[in-house]
Amino acid sequence: MKKNRRGNYFEDFHVGMRIRHATPRTLTEGDRSLYIGLTGSRAALCTAHTNARQLGFERQPLEDLLAFNTAFGKTVPDISLNAVANLGYAEVRFLSHVYPGDTLSVESEVIGLKENASRRSGVVYVRSTARNQHGREVLGWVRWVMVHKRDPEAPCGEPVVPATQPVVTVEHLRASDYTARVREITAMTCIDDLWEDYAVGERIDHPGAMTINDSDHSIATRLYQNTARAHFDGHAVAAGGGKRLVYGGHVISVCRALAYDGLENGLSILAINAGSHVNPTYAGDTIACATRVLDKIDLGHGHVGALRLRMIGAKNACAASIVFPEPGEGRAAHPSNVVLDLDYTIAIPQR
Amino acid sequence: MKKNRRGNYFEDFHVGMRIRHATPRTLTEGDRSLYIGLTGSRAALCTAHTNARQLGFERQPLEDLLAFNTAFGKTVPDISLNAVANLGYAEVRFLSHVYPGDTLSVESEVIGLKENASRRSGVVYVRSTARNQHGREVLGWVRWVMVHKRDPEAPCGEPVVPATQPVVTVEHLRASDYTARVREITAMTCIDDLWEDYAVGERIDHPGAMTINDSDHSIATRLYQNTARAHFDGHAVAAGGGKRLVYGGHVISVCRALAYDGLENGLSILAINAGSHVNPTYAGDTIACATRVLDKIDLGHGHVGALRLRMIGAKNACAASIVFPEPGEGRAAHPSNVVLDLDYTIAIPQR
Amino acid sequence: MKKNRRGNYFEDFHVGMRIRHATPRTLTEGDRSLYIGLTGSRAALCTAHTNARQLGFERQPLEDLLAFNTAFGKTVPDISLNAVANLGYAEVRFLSHVYPGDTLSVESEVIGLKENASRRSGVVYVRSTARNQHGREVLGWVRWVMVHKRDPEAPCGEPVVPATQPVVTVEHLRASDYTARVREITAMTCIDDLWEDYAVGERIDHPGAMTINDSDHSIATRLYQNTARAHFDGHAVAAGGGKRLVYGGHVISVCRALAYDGLENGLSILAINAGSHVNPTYAGDTIACATRVLDKIDLGHGHVGALRLRMIGAKNACAASIVFPEPGEGRAAHPSNVVLDLDYTIAIPQR
Repeated sequence: MKKNRRGNYFEDFHVGMRIRHATPRTLTEGDRSLYIGLTGSRAALCTAHTNARQLGFERQPLEDLLAFNTAFGKTVPDISLNAVANLGYAEVRFLSHVYPGDTLSVESEVIGLKENASRRSGVVYVRSTARNQHGREVLGWVRWVMVHKRDPEAPCGEPVVPATQPVVTVEHLRASDYTARVREITAMTCIDDLWEDYAVGERIDHPGAMTINDSDHSIATRLYQNTARAHFDGHAVAAGGGKRLVYGGHVISVCRALAYDGLENGLSILAINAGSHVNPTYAGDTIACATRVLDKIDLGHGHVGALRLRMIGAKNACAASIVFPEPGEGRAAHPSNVVLDLDYTIAIPQR
Repeated sequence: MKKNRRGNYFEDFHVGMRIRHATPRTLTEGDRSLYIGLTGSRAALCTAHTNARQLGFERQPLEDLLAFNTAFGKTVPDISLNAVANLGYAEVRFLSHVYPGDTLSVESEVIGLKENASRRSGVVYVRSTARNQHGREVLGWVRWVMVHKRDPEAPCGEPVVPATQPVVTVEHLRASDYTARVREITAMTCIDDLWEDYAVGERIDHPGAMTINDSDHSIATRLYQNTARAHFDGHAVAAGGGKRLVYGGHVISVCRALAYDGLENGLSILAINAGSHVNPTYAGDTIACATRVLDKIDLGHGHVGALRLRMIGAKNACAASIVFPEPGEGRAAHPSNVVLDLDYTIAIPQR
Repeated sequence: MKKNRRGNYFEDFHVGMRIRHATPRTLTEGDRSLYIGLTGSRAALCTAHTNARQLGFERQPLEDLLAFNTAFGKTVPDISLNAVANLGYAEVRFLSHVYPGDTLSVESEVIGLKENASRRSGVVYVRSTARNQHGREVLGWVRWVMVHKRDPEAPCGEPVVPATQPVVTVEHLRASDYTARVREITAMTCIDDLWEDYAVGERIDHPGAMTINDSDHSIATRLYQNTARAHFDGHAVAAGGGKRLVYGGHVISVCRALAYDGLENGLSILAINAGSHVNPTYAGDTIACATRVLDKIDLGHGHVGALRLRMIGAKNACAASIVFPEPGEGRAAHPSNVVLDLDYTIAIPQR
């Protein structure tokens, strides 16, 4: 009758394994308030009922990353409780807005496994899917994470490394929720820049910066019911000579909130094409970020276009000092104060 | 016209005194969000509307300990503003679920008084009752607390020490809310252990651990409108050579949230039979906990049974290191890093 | 295509300039929960639906200062992003209660400008107005703030210093929401003191004190979507030899919550006549406060009267040690541990 739940170790996974994660979660206006309090989010569509109505929505959707972080948190007890590090994301698709009262249920499938040369750990690749209470897929993503082995000697099969798309392709970019009314956003943000006003290669240094406090990231991570030990167990991490790690999803949320200034008329995130937590963030670090426009995608929609953006977050430095390495140069191209390198796509009204 | 409210001192109480506490409080979904953010609670019944429906409830009740801590907080300005220490709980009965929108009103009766030999303080025993907006009793409990005397010379009557029951008896264990549908909980938690799968004497080491930050416990304690000075007035406690104390009810909530792993299919708390904050908790402490099954109670209900559990919380140690002393050995039996010894009873579905 | 939003500098303002602030904001029960968690507010009218009904309200309004701080926060990106210091408030009128679901839109007009002798900064005077979704003015205020110049050499016009009223006059004190039922408040607070029980000159030392943690003020300030750099960017302020400043509006909220004890039957704030953040507050400071009754105003309403109060907040000292300087002596009259000097007016039932 041993009920000491220790989570899965590398050798517990097999390719094709499907995992239903506990338990479904209903998100509410209370979660939105906390999300704003923890991140400073100011997204127009999510800040006022009247904004949402004026933009052609019946109701005010929840912040994209509140939904994503909640769905992600659900996978932690099964996938990454024994993680060494979360290595990357790909194919993150925001398929439908999530509204207060919606309930998210999350499942994952193991799509790849690769033992490390040391035989002490390995990389687990999973594809996860979040559905709402109507069974509609609202979020899907791939991530890969380095997970400890329970027993270094445990045999592992041949490595399987899945192919992932470098960019979420146009047919997966949700745009059906938008009507001509989205152009009204300029009346809310008092900023006129729309899709046409951004240029490929343009750089934006976001003026704000945010010091992350211990309770900020702890409350955020608990709100997502994310139980990863590295964020919470200060005693254990201190015994190992370390400090509690800030959950990477909180860093993304903070950077996204800072990126409001300069991207005010962005409506929603459509996709995260690739993401990497380049270096760890700790409480007390101050985060700043800068954005480069990687691409402009005309969705043929008539009312909204997409901007593909690269957002780099750095700690204890100003946005202007951030350097954008060539794409594909990887982690080594970044100085040690870079904490986030995120390639994502947003919807923004066209003229 | 002096309006300097200083709270009651030991000599201000008399046995039989009844106190209505200010003011009624409405709990909402916003309070639930904050409760999850502060504690990491994952109770299936309280995490999703869809879970509650599937389990046979019309709506999603609030977390038991959110209701308890709120009701408890109401009593502080009258009972324990001048407390030295909260000594213990007994007969804590969770008589009815509390739902968002419900309003709690709390009253207390002084049922015992015992001056200390030093004459500088005494123990006040109170029985408190929380009712919802329909006048229905939702919570009842006895606690005893050591309270300063204003004047050591003030005369006090003969000591009255009330008899309290060592265990909340079966007839006070609420089970009427549960139907056969509660067995569906295994589909949410993805864990199969039900009442039959626990054995008397069985021990569960809960895998998580939680570092408590200053803001975590401050926000929680303010959320409960608990005004006890020891939690908030860092200047005064530092002047006395001390540190702000973490509210004991927050420690119970954190331990209960950690105890999810291993007790996933627990539905609700039915009773706290006895509880003691064995040593103080301070911000920065990391809490871990372990549970021993004290008893299995067949309620004759057909769908749910009760588990009587002893949960011991310790700081800056792992769950596996926690020692369960013999019942009744009291505080002295615990090492100095034990912060909580709680004897409580939960409802869990039967096969 | 430069989109590096740097906010307005002193020379960017001109008298008569009107600014619509981004974006409207809907307040909810979730924001109330967080407000209670961050401040410990216990205002009877705002603590329970049943209280509000019993007091003659259809619904439970939001805390006055939650609405004020939210409206204030909206003005920051345009008015005070480059502020040196927020110098003062006047004519703050609370014209209508704000309810969960209400949306606030905020506009400002520049009513005065005065360059400093150093030519490196100047004082900007603005009158701001918050309206709800029905276009009804719910809040109005004047504030003046010292703002950096981008270029010390930039020419500035003749100084314009607007006349402000020293006290919000009776005709602007909202009382129409109150009926005879407000007297029922004594049944909630269990305190009998009404308008008649306060005397001009009377002093109240509020018994509580509150240590402000880093996350407390950070979460509060983000909740208000206030982006002022001095509160958030620990890296930049440390580079300048400083520490992150606690947002002054949070200090007002904390003092107001502490002032519950002794002013329990206050219904709502009607006005802030004058306010000054005398010295900075930092995380770790413990705030206490005391109140002196400046005036009693019979509104001729029959059910509620007004109390004009002076509340002084100090850090790391007990309420009893606070000294009330003569009115009009200004900042220099205060010792360095005084952080707030607020002259405000509340509604309270009459017998």
